[in-house]
Amino acid sequence: MEETHTDTLPLTMNSSEKKETVCIFGTGDYGRSLGLKMCQCGYSIVFGSRNPQMSSLLPSGAEVLSYSEAAQKSDIIILAIHREHYDFLTELTNVLNGKILVDISNNLKINQYPESNAEYLAQLVPGAFVVKALNTVSAWALQSGALDASRQIFVCGNDSKTKQRVMDIIRSIGLTPLDQGSLMAANEIENYPLQLFPMWKFPLYLSAALCLFFFCYCVVREVIYPYVHNMEDNTFRIAISIPNRVFPIVALMLLALVYLPGVIAAILQLYRGTKYRRFPDWLDHWMLCRKQIGLLALGFAFLHVLYTLVIPIRYYVRWRLRNLTITQATLKKEDPFNTSSAWLSDSYVALGILGFFLFVLLGITSLPSVSNMVNWREFRFVQSKLGYLTLVVCTAHTLVYGGKRFLSPKILRWCLPSAYVLALIIPCALLVIKFILILPCIDKTLTRIRQGWERDSKFSKSALNGKTDI
Amino acid sequence: MEETHTDTLPLTMNSSEKKETVCIFGTGDYGRSLGLKMCQCGYSIVFGSRNPQMSSLLPSGAEVLSYSEAAQKSDIIILAIHREHYDFLTELTNVLNGKILVDISNNLKINQYPESNAEYLAQLVPGAFVVKALNTVSAWALQSGALDASRQIFVCGNDSKTKQRVMDIIRSIGLTPLDQGSLMAANEIENYPLQLFPMWKFPLYLSAALCLFFFCYCVVREVIYPYVHNMEDNTFRIAISIPNRVFPIVALMLLALVYLPGVIAAILQLYRGTKYRRFPDWLDHWMLCRKQIGLLALGFAFLHVLYTLVIPIRYYVRWRLRNLTITQATLKKEDPFNTSSAWLSDSYVALGILGFFLFVLLGITSLPSVSNMVNWREFRFVQSKLGYLTLVVCTAHTLVYGGKRFLSPKILRWCLPSAYVLALIIPCALLVIKFILILPCIDKTLTRIRQGWERDSKFSKSALNGKTDI
Amino acid sequence: MEETHTDTLPLTMNSSEKKETVCIFGTGDYGRSLGLKMCQCGYSIVFGSRNPQMSSLLPSGAEVLSYSEAAQKSDIIILAIHREHYDFLTELTNVLNGKILVDISNNLKINQYPESNAEYLAQLVPGAFVVKALNTVSAWALQSGALDASRQIFVCGNDSKTKQRVMDIIRSIGLTPLDQGSLMAANEIENYPLQLFPMWKFPLYLSAALCLFFFCYCVVREVIYPYVHNMEDNTFRIAISIPNRVFPIVALMLLALVYLPGVIAAILQLYRGTKYRRFPDWLDHWMLCRKQIGLLALGFAFLHVLYTLVIPIRYYVRWRLRNLTITQATLKKEDPFNTSSAWLSDSYVALGILGFFLFVLLGITSLPSVSNMVNWREFRFVQSKLGYLTLVVCTAHTLVYGGKRFLSPKILRWCLPSAYVLALIIPCALLVIKFILILPCIDKTLTRIRQGWERDSKFSKSALNGKTDI
Repeated sequence: MEETHTDTLPLTMNSSEKKETVCIFGTGDYGRSLGLKMCQCGYSIVFGSRNPQMSSLLPSGAEVLSYSEAAQKSDIIILAIHREHYDFLTELTNVLNGKILVDISNNLKINQYPESNAEYLAQLVPGAFVVKALNTVSAWALQSGALDASRQIFVCGNDSKTKQRVMDIIRSIGLTPLDQGSLMAANEIENYPLQLFPMWKFPLYLSAALCLFFFCYCVVREVIYPYVHNMEDNTFRIAISIPNRVFPIVALMLLALVYLPGVIAAILQLYRGTKYRRFPDWLDHWMLCRKQIGLLALGFAFLHVLYTLVIPIRYYVRWRLRNLTITQATLKKEDPFNTSSAWLSDSYVALGILGFFLFVLLGITSLPSVSNMVNWREFRFVQSKLGYLTLVVCTAHTLVYGGKRFLSPKILRWCLPSAYVLALIIPCALLVIKFILILPCIDKTLTRIRQGWERDSKFSKSALNGKTDI
Repeated sequence: MEETHTDTLPLTMNSSEKKETVCIFGTGDYGRSLGLKMCQCGYSIVFGSRNPQMSSLLPSGAEVLSYSEAAQKSDIIILAIHREHYDFLTELTNVLNGKILVDISNNLKINQYPESNAEYLAQLVPGAFVVKALNTVSAWALQSGALDASRQIFVCGNDSKTKQRVMDIIRSIGLTPLDQGSLMAANEIENYPLQLFPMWKFPLYLSAALCLFFFCYCVVREVIYPYVHNMEDNTFRIAISIPNRVFPIVALMLLALVYLPGVIAAILQLYRGTKYRRFPDWLDHWMLCRKQIGLLALGFAFLHVLYTLVIPIRYYVRWRLRNLTITQATLKKEDPFNTSSAWLSDSYVALGILGFFLFVLLGITSLPSVSNMVNWREFRFVQSKLGYLTLVVCTAHTLVYGGKRFLSPKILRWCLPSAYVLALIIPCALLVIKFILILPCIDKTLTRIRQGWERDSKFSKSALNGKTDI
Repeated sequence: MEETHTDTLPLTMNSSEKKETVCIFGTGDYGRSLGLKMCQCGYSIVFGSRNPQMSSLLPSGAEVLSYSEAAQKSDIIILAIHREHYDFLTELTNVLNGKILVDISNNLKINQYPESNAEYLAQLVPGAFVVKALNTVSAWALQSGALDASRQIFVCGNDSKTKQRVMDIIRSIGLTPLDQGSLMAANEIENYPLQLFPMWKFPLYLSAALCLFFFCYCVVREVIYPYVHNMEDNTFRIAISIPNRVFPIVALMLLALVYLPGVIAAILQLYRGTKYRRFPDWLDHWMLCRKQIGLLALGFAFLHVLYTLVIPIRYYVRWRLRNLTITQATLKKEDPFNTSSAWLSDSYVALGILGFFLFVLLGITSLPSVSNMVNWREFRFVQSKLGYLTLVVCTAHTLVYGGKRFLSPKILRWCLPSAYVLALIIPCALLVIKFILILPCIDKTLTRIRQGWERDSKFSKSALNGKTDI
């Protein structure tokens, strides 16, 4: 499922009049792709190269000259060269004086060098205007049309006029420039394409730890305990039965952990009596990766659904049901129908289905293209109201699952309760606290604090009664 | 799953040269967030405040002055103040004369005031150019980077030059301005962020009504009837069995209701002999919320699939199957295999799976980012051809489900047929009418009408033979 | 699920000052919709019509004049007329001299005429500046607001100034212009909206052929063979059992075919010792439609999952299980529990679930809006690492499914092995080759080739040690 393009328009053109001449230093893959793209959009391209004679595969119509000759042809020079080879530019300082140098380089590691490539370039050629841009788009995306890949191009530079010119060029080749400020931003821009899901790290470690803990816990209770006590070989439960206990537990706990930081923040604000003090860093970071935690929870819930639905086609389940039937048949004893069991079993399953359905809804609305379509009020309605509803339904599902067995002493093995009992602690506590927080008296105070009121401030009265800013 | 940002680039910069100075009135949350964002994008910010000394948490580098001092520093003044506190602006009319006032305020309710905030502002300060903008983006989205939240900013104003300037600023901070015309549009722009899924209201009420009706219908047939006749307690069916009857029925009916207005419109156009007369309002509204109705139908179909797949793990089903087996085992009687039952059961299930698969395809192509990738012809192919195929397959699924029992008198209880029989009325009627409409002779007339031909027009001949406009 | 709009802002405005006057030739649906939209965005519109008196349903405030009168009112004339009726323009050459003509026409078939409509127009009116634009957006999308439908507008033209003006107009009505170069691109732009999933054709034919082959193969083995040998009527297997063999096989083969071209390309590059030679055309095309092949594979996998999950509610399966139980019950013989069967069955199912889960993840990340959010490194990580993991898990799933029966002679029928054995050939071969390719010694050479090194080049040494361009 690599990204492809149904709608690339690889237009070969030789327009009679050209927009302007742009110089590209370097005839590597990236230089060539960019040159071709800009040719198609009407620019006249001059390549600068070490060996102008040897360069091949260049877009037809583009000139190839030596570096200094090429630089003289244009105001704007795009550097498609690795940072390690920037030093030859020092020989060209005269030619490059007053020109716009566009640094598009990337490094191999985050913070590989003390300063960013663009700042290093600005030191090498102090007379030039350095603009950082285009490092987030790949040669491949340029070649195959820009409709599919991300079209956001971060741009930064100290001189706003030259930055504006570079942004115009970027816009004219079908990409979306995004001004990120001065060259001090270059470091962040250069690190961006090297990141590997930075916001996912904490949620992934968290869920891995939870999975591991509950897996071991269940192995102890369901494999080791029966082996020690009855010499039963239950190892086959590791494949499906135990994952199908671990996944729903982790899903429920992660879902609760999505809403926990909001509640903690509310308590902190109530305690401090103001919203104008920063939250501790761990809470800030936690709040920023709530979406990722929620999506992981959805993944575990999805696995739980699949693991549950395959139950009837498992060999073990079929064998057990058949033997039960055979035993009863040989005893010629029919099972009486137990309405309350039917109710418990059905409502437990129905709650699970509804919870999963709401969960999927939440997941769909967190797709970027869907969340872009809704306004702020709708987004908050879905993520907050619907999210809590999901949590309530899923918690109820787990509670009803326990049914009569819940905390009965029979279920203890080596004093360990069922794993799902542990899983219920956080969601139940969270729901109780949330319920307290939405009691009218507390909710009113919280709303006032969030509108800017401060309990300890001498100006609080005026802030409340006077002009309140948005 | 709150919206977060993996790619916020919170750039602190102190660029040597600034773009231009912008003044923000009000140092509340929104004012500060906007100011910080604009600082990062190279603007020089001056805040206007009641108490310039007391303002805290402002972006470093920003000045805070009194309102009138601040207003003198810039051409453009962004009002981050609630409408209720606009009156102090009347004292500043001299200073504000000829300046651009950007109204970013929102109200708490739709149509809270007789005129929009922006128009009210224009009345208060007649000498200023009022532009409405930025009310749809939240302080939170500004703070955390604009990549994830909706970046569409509606802008309106009477003076196009000043509006253009505001749009340039919006574009430069990474948002997408959308010109909505003169200040008369301000009312709609202000109502936009207060809406809560306006297009979903009718579809939701409709499906709730259908669910309620069929739920009661099924309760009467499957819970009350057996209780009255045989004193059986079937209440446990309310949890799963009855929802699993109601959901597929509602899904099928809603799917048919997606395509019904198109057929009604075609009949109307055939009857009137022209496409140049407006449809009645109810039909217009119905056609506008077809996507929502279809998505709700998909939701019910999804629930139906889950409710069906859990059947074998229900206590009731296991109990019934076991008892059946035990009875036969004690009678030592094996069941003969019935090929036609196998065919009926399998083809009913296979049709259901295919129908659901097509339905999911329809749902995926209606995701905004997917529908953006296809051209108009492809979109119509998917939504029309694939949509009707889905309807045909789902209707066939329901018909085969009935199988031999369909309309047999045995199935009547208190003269009430099975619920699925009622559900089939609309889809079957729709498919018959659609079939008639695509007969060549009728289809030809319809196509001519849709290309602009009018039956009763004296100019129809010329329109057909002469120059036809697009 | 037709596309609708919750957020259309149908603004009726009579702004005191207008941006500029634009002339539209043709008062058909498209002309009117475009006119209305431009009116709303502040333009003053003059329509040109054959019968200015007869035109109806035009936006209020718009003038309707004869063609030549209308043309004199504005610099920019948008032609909302079919190509067949362009000839009247030759009479207006004097008036049209020096004006900008925007050609928005579409044809009914791809390459219907020898030259594009825009080039034909440029020949008819040589003195005018012809710009091709707006042909990809429908009248309907214009009417109902541009937030939902694709907002990308391809623009081309020989004169860059006039092209720029048209692009500004397009941007001001809320659409995103995309410069495609000179008028030679008009042909491709005109063909674009007529395409019907061009990239999907090969994948669809491929999977249809695979389905057909394996369907026939399975019918021979599972329906015809038992009929010939035992006179059993197994035709009912055609509805579910056989599709549920065919779909997973096709899914696995298609998934392998997604990654095969990459491996072939690597071998070709290793053999040639350079990356600077074009791949054969078939390989190029294959690589471009990998995403489509992968999505089809996901579709088949989804069907396989559904077909598998309904197994326990099928009449045939229930009948078989019941009879097995009855037979054993009458013999009063209980089945001993077989741990290795439980392990095989459970691990086979668990692998299938994990494989499907990873597959769904791949599918979600290939949604345009999701892939837009990740940077290049993340995208490659997901599509390459995660993709191969999916392939490994799914292949293992199939291998374990075979279990002990794999290639046992008992399973041969008319010398035909089980279908899944055939399905395993390509994935297993692919995984073996891939494993060889990632051995350090080979991987190193390949990486060097992909960084630009050439084995046979006299310059290879310099390219490696000297300055390497990006």
